[in-house]
Parts: sequence; C-alpha cells; structure tokens
Amino acid sequence: MTTLLTNAFVVTMDGDLTVHERGWVQVDGTTLTALGPGPAPVIAGAGAGAEVIDCGGDIVMPGMVNAHCHMAMSVFRGLGEDVDDRLYRYILPLERKFVSPAMVRAGSALSALEMIAGGVTTVADMYYFETEVGDVCTEAGLRAIVGQTLADFDPPDHKDFDEGFARVEELVDRYAGHPLVTPSIAPHAPYSTGFETMSRVAEWSAEHPDVPVQMHLAESTLEVNWARDTHGKSTIAVTAEAGLLKPNLICAHCLQLDDADIRMMSEHQVCVVTNPRSNGKAGRGISPVEKLRNAGLPVGIGSDGAMSGNTLDLFSQLAPVSMFAKLLGGSRKPLPAVDVVRMASIEGARALSLNLKTGSLEAGKQADLIRVSLAAPRMHPMYDPYSALVFAALPSDVTDTMVAGRWLMRDRKVLTLDATKTIADANQIARQFKTEMARLDTIAP
Amino acid sequence: MTTLLTNAFVVTMDGDLTVHERGWVQVDGTTLTALGPGPAPVIAGAGAGAEVIDCGGDIVMPGMVNAHCHMAMSVFRGLGEDVDDRLYRYILPLERKFVSPAMVRAGSALSALEMIAGGVTTVADMYYFETEVGDVCTEAGLRAIVGQTLADFDPPDHKDFDEGFARVEELVDRYAGHPLVTPSIAPHAPYSTGFETMSRVAEWSAEHPDVPVQMHLAESTLEVNWARDTHGKSTIAVTAEAGLLKPNLICAHCLQLDDADIRMMSEHQVCVVTNPRSNGKAGRGISPVEKLRNAGLPVGIGSDGAMSGNTLDLFSQLAPVSMFAKLLGGSRKPLPAVDVVRMASIEGARALSLNLKTGSLEAGKQADLIRVSLAAPRMHPMYDPYSALVFAALPSDVTDTMVAGRWLMRDRKVLTLDATKTIADANQIARQFKTEMARLDTIAP
Repeated sequence: MTTLLTNAFVVTMDGDLTVHERGWVQVDGTTLTALGPGPAPVIAGAGAGAEVIDCGGDIVMPGMVNAHCHMAMSVFRGLGEDVDDRLYRYILPLERKFVSPAMVRAGSALSALEMIAGGVTTVADMYYFETEVGDVCTEAGLRAIVGQTLADFDPPDHKDFDEGFARVEELVDRYAGHPLVTPSIAPHAPYSTGFETMSRVAEWSAEHPDVPVQMHLAESTLEVNWARDTHGKSTIAVTAEAGLLKPNLICAHCLQLDDADIRMMSEHQVCVVTNPRSNGKAGRGISPVEKLRNAGLPVGIGSDGAMSGNTLDLFSQLAPVSMFAKLLGGSRKPLPAVDVVRMASIEGARALSLNLKTGSLEAGKQADLIRVSLAAPRMHPMYDPYSALVFAALPSDVTDTMVAGRWLMRDRKVLTLDATKTIADANQIARQFKTEMARLDTIAP
Repeated sequence: MTTLLTNAFVVTMDGDLTVHERGWVQVDGTTLTALGPGPAPVIAGAGAGAEVIDCGGDIVMPGMVNAHCHMAMSVFRGLGEDVDDRLYRYILPLERKFVSPAMVRAGSALSALEMIAGGVTTVADMYYFETEVGDVCTEAGLRAIVGQTLADFDPPDHKDFDEGFARVEELVDRYAGHPLVTPSIAPHAPYSTGFETMSRVAEWSAEHPDVPVQMHLAESTLEVNWARDTHGKSTIAVTAEAGLLKPNLICAHCLQLDDADIRMMSEHQVCVVTNPRSNGKAGRGISPVEKLRNAGLPVGIGSDGAMSGNTLDLFSQLAPVSMFAKLLGGSRKPLPAVDVVRMASIEGARALSLNLKTGSLEAGKQADLIRVSLAAPRMHPMYDPYSALVFAALPSDVTDTMVAGRWLMRDRKVLTLDATKTIADANQIARQFKTEMARLDTIAP
C-alpha cells in the first residue's frame, strides 16, 4: 500500500533542516520511502491501491515526541487546581483507592485520544499497570515507551520492590520485539526509590542495556533536601553513585541543577526531558535547557501527566519552552524557534533512543507524520515555519496523524478510538473521584 | 429581536462568580436582558423572530477583553523571530517605509479576524492611523478602544507632537458617542514621548477625563535607564511628576517595578495590563501581577502586537499569566485559575473603564459573549470550569462570538469579515516586507 502526500509544505527536521515549501512525501507500508521538492513523481508500481492526498499547501512534518507522560492520570486533569498540598490531600489517597487496570486503561485511552488529535505520535509513559498502557497504545496505534514505576510510597500495583521488579520482567517479556511498544523500567525518583533500590535497578539495567530507564530527577526541593541530608551531595551525584547515570537514562524535569551536576550528566551522556507547563504550574522553577543542550545532552519535551500540565499535546509546550529559556537568558535570542521544534521531534526521539525510527521525515524511517493546517489567520503571514509552529500553531491545527504508515486521524477524526465512549468512561471515573474528594474534605485537618 | 441560548454551562464572571452548570441567557437587541439556571422560561412577547439556540452543554461566558494590542502589526507576525536587534534592524525601517492607512487597515482586519475567531470581543489598541483601526473594528463588530500613538522616533503618521495632537483630536471627534469605539490618546512610553509632551498629554487629559490614556510603562531597561539618567528616579515617579498617573491611565507591561512604584500606582488608582507572552518571548521579565492586584489595581491581560506575542486571542495568554505568577511565588497557589479568567474578562473591562458595559454576563449589560465547545478530550474531566478555561481550552474551541447582540461568528465561521481576502491582503504586504528585509540584510552592519 502506497500513500503519496503532495502539494505539502514539508518540514523534515533532518540533519540539514531541509524544508520543501512545495513538496511531497511517499509512504509504503510502515515506512517513509521517499520525499522531495516540487510536484510528486509518477510512482512506478504503486498500483491501483495508491492513495494520493493533495495537502493544499499545509505543513507536513514529523509527528511529535511527548517524552514524559503519565497517560493514566488524565482522569485527574485539573483536580485540586491551585491547591498547594493536593498531592497528599487528594492524589495519593485517590490513587490508593482507585488505581486499577481498568482505571489505567480508561485514563490512557483518553490521553491517547488527545495526543493523536494533537499531533503526538510517540509517547514515553511511566505509571502503574503499564501493560494496560502498552495495550491501549497498541490499539490506538501510538508509538510508546511504557515504564513500570518503582516507588516506596505504597504504590497501587506492588507491595514491595520484588513485586515491582516482577512487574518489570512481565512488561519486558510481553513487549519484546514489539513494533510500537518499548518496555521500560521507571524508578520514581531518588527520594522515593532509595539508594539501595536505585543500585539494584542499575544492576538490572546493566543486564538489559536496551531497556530505557525513566526517572524524575532534580525536580523538587524535597528531593534535593533528601539527597543532601542522607548523602551530603546533590541528587545527581547520588544517582551517579548508584550507577544509574547511563545513556539509557531518561531524566525528567531536571530543574535544580548546578554546573557540576550538568557536567556529570554530560560525562555520562544521559538524556533529558523538560516539562515546562508542569513545572511552571507548580511554581517549581525553570529547567536550564540551554545549558543542558550546550553540554551536548539531547533534551526532549514532555507534557507530564494531565494532572500536572493539563494538556498532553506538544504545541502547548513549545511557547513555554521558548519563553522560559529567553527569560533565563534575559533576551529574545536564546533557544530559537527551530531548536524548539527540534526538541519536539528529532531531539526528543534521540532522548528516547528512538531517533533511528522516528522524529524526522527521512527515507527509510517509520512513517510517523502529521499534517498541520494553515487555514487559521494566526498562521499568517508566515515569515518562518518554525516561528509559526512554536508561537502560533495549536494542536487543533493538526488535521491528520500517521504512525508507522497507519492513519490514526484523518480530517480531525480519530480513527482508532471511539471518542464519545472514551470521554464518557473517563468522566465516569471522575464522578467517583469527586465523591471521594468531598469525603476527604470532611476529614481534612 | 430576541436570542435565547439554552442548555448552556453559564460562567457569568459576575461579582458572586455565579455559575449555572445548566442554564440560559437571553439577549434582546444589543443587551443581555436575563439569565438563569435550569431550562429557559417561555419568553412573553418574543414573537416569531426569536432565535433559540441549544448550546448542548457548552460553556457560555463573557467575551474576552484583550486590553493591549497593536492590531495593524499582525503583518509583522513572526518577522525576525529570535533576532535580538530586530527593532532597529527591521521593524522601525519597515514601519517608516510601509505604514500607511491601507497597511493599517489590512493588518487590523487580519487581527480582527483572529480575535473574533478566538473569543475576544473587546480590544484596546494603540498604533498609527487609528481611524482605520476604528473603522475596521466597527465593520467587524468588535468593541474597541483606539489610541493614537504619540512618539518622538519619527513615527509614520506625525512629523511632530502638534501633528500628533491634531490626529488625536480628529479621532476624538470621529468617535464621540460611538456605540462600539472609544477614542484614546497613547503616548508611546516615557522615554519615547519625553517629559514635556507627557505633561502636555496630562493637561489635555484633564480636559478630556473620559478619554483613556494608554502608555507602555516600566517595560524595558532602556526606559528605566532613561528615567534614572534624566530625572534620577523611577519611570513611574517620572510619569507621576508629569501628571499622568490617573484612573484613566492604562499602563501596559509594568515589569520593572519596586514596592514604592506599586504604592504610587495604587495611590493614583491607575489601571494595568500584563502581556505575558510578549514579555516572556522578549526575555524582559515577569510582571508582579499578584502584588499589583493585592495593591487594589485592576490588571487586565493583553496580547500585545502579533509581532511581539504572535497570537491575539487571550486563551494563549492565560496559562502564561498563571505560570508566571506561580513561578514568582514559588508554589502552585498564587493567582488561582478563577482570578486569571477574571483578569481576561471583568477585570480587563475594569482596567479599560468599560466594566459597566462588558466583561461579565449580567442583565442590563451589552451582550458580549462567546460559546466554548467542550468537545475536545482536553476538556475532560472538568473538575473546575476555570481550570479548564485557563489550562486546557484553546481559542479554536470558541464556536460563536457575539458583540452587542450581533453574531460576529457562528459555528466557527466569522460573519463580518471575508477570511480568504483578509488573509491574502496581509500576505501581499508580507511579500513586500520580505523583499525589503532582504535589502536591509545586505546593508546590515
């Protein structure tokens, strides 16, 4: 089966940042097989089954990489907004009571629906019951890294770390060689995993070098204080000592870093994911993205869970990524728009070690792409496509989403999920949450 | 003519923050005449001409107030993105060469199109040839304050301040008693107007207390240095000395303020407009919005020109307003979502002294309202409508926009402007800009 996208403004995000203002892209099966400028060539052997789509000048670009997410948590979206102690007051009690395979499935489906509609084609997730997340992504057609979380705060799916590791092993077995889903191990954070278990994860990881490790790192004052009080050093230094700083470590957040931390991260070639809306909304601070990138580290962009950042597309994150870097740098020069688009695509893919498969439009890669409409007045004039994508485009401008050659959305209609049922299922869970929150409020200190 | 909106999630933004999760709104002529919870009453005397619209549970709320804009500048959108010296390198030379009534008309029409599509019903504008802006807004149906700019940097429409004042007088005459358009005088900024002219504006303003004064204030280091070097005091203190700090002064930006400045502004009861995306993108800093509001000042939200902030709707500004306050405060508590929606509606209207006419859904006010779709998965679950509006809603969720009882958009189609022609006209000007920019690049130092 051949699909030919013609009359497209092709933004490739390849190494030369090639742009074809009028160009074409060819997809055969799961693979992007060719692309170029000008009118599309006549395709030999395409046969009667070839689909030719005139994009009417719209942007065709790589699908975006949401490099840090907790898909199941979309059912918490906006819960306890602006409440400083909501984690202990609402979220942990609700998680203990309600997190189940069914809840994870419902939340993940809502998130998959939103991401496909907003142009995300790859997501890195960490939460509980991750086989459910993997199954939802498989059905919805999303490329995903699914990480079993390990934590010591009585999490919903393991009583102790042995049980947690058993879940990891189950996940790794289930998705070995899967075309879309990559299993992952996800120690929650240094303070909530502990040094001994971090060391055990590092040992396990040395035997499974192809399994990405995801961890929240240098995110909160709580964590920084824990590292200082228990080890007399920075949280990065503790993580290094545990043996976790490796090229397969995906470090989410990375707010509280000094130059020595960044040097250490650079020496060990870890990967970073910035989550600007989540961090901004929590008032936690700004990640030094420019310094990290200048130190040679790939920095992807994550939405975090919808409880923290509310939306799961990447367009909503792009202006914050840019503004935060410019505010840190004190001028409009830092982190130009093209670099922000890079972070949302090929650099995010590199942060997840998926850059050989996805993140740019190049012949031989998987066909993970989106079409972005230029119909809105916001998108005009367009002096620079990267500026338009970062500062003017909305997730709702995405009209079509393809992963591995499969259309997940056409003309704004998601094809792989029942939108009405998915939203209704999530709202049903939210009604239970509301009842329980009212009860929790009556017993609040 | 009666219009009845039924089955609506009515977010009134009135003094009690009344919300009717299932309610109705009645409009007669230009006026919102009644609203309430539950099913809509049978309207006596509505006659056969009454239009009844079932909103299907969508949010109906006040149209938003964009309290600081340069509508004509949409033709500069994204021009010289990330270039630190773009003002002197591109923008001022382009303005000198190309700003004309026709260019102001074309840019303003593009901006009106975008704002109507994004749920803005009131805009405060300042630029040149403002009679064109007023005329565009009248035709498009937007409520507007149009401010003739006065500046000393060889602006495009006046050779000296006498000519500038003549333009102000013309504007005031033209729109006296106009139902939608309020004329305004707009000294550009302290450093670019000068103390003598600021004093002259203050004298003129004392004779015209109903004419709002708009000014960029405490925006840049350049300005702060000017005040210190020429007057040995803060830019707010200089402005006070010139006699401009009055309740009809609308101060845009307000980044570089100390506590004494805020006290002075509070004593004189000025109005403030924060422009978070514009300021963030320029790396200029964060306005102390919480301090200003705690000092009793109304703080509205502005997009600034599309050259600075790229988009002109307010939804794009809401998350940045919130995040910036939380980052300044270091927790998720500051400036709750409800206050951000307040700033975008009734408080913005108060900052423009238009709060008796617009900014909330209350019987007797002008019918300036929007309908916001809840169809997107982003909008679910909805624990709190203000959280959903601030952190999840997009300008593209606005399906219908009404100003003074007139539908400017229905079902996402703007009725008062020809979208295709408006976009084409703006792009035609952008082509001239591109040619001139290429020439300027060849002579750049």
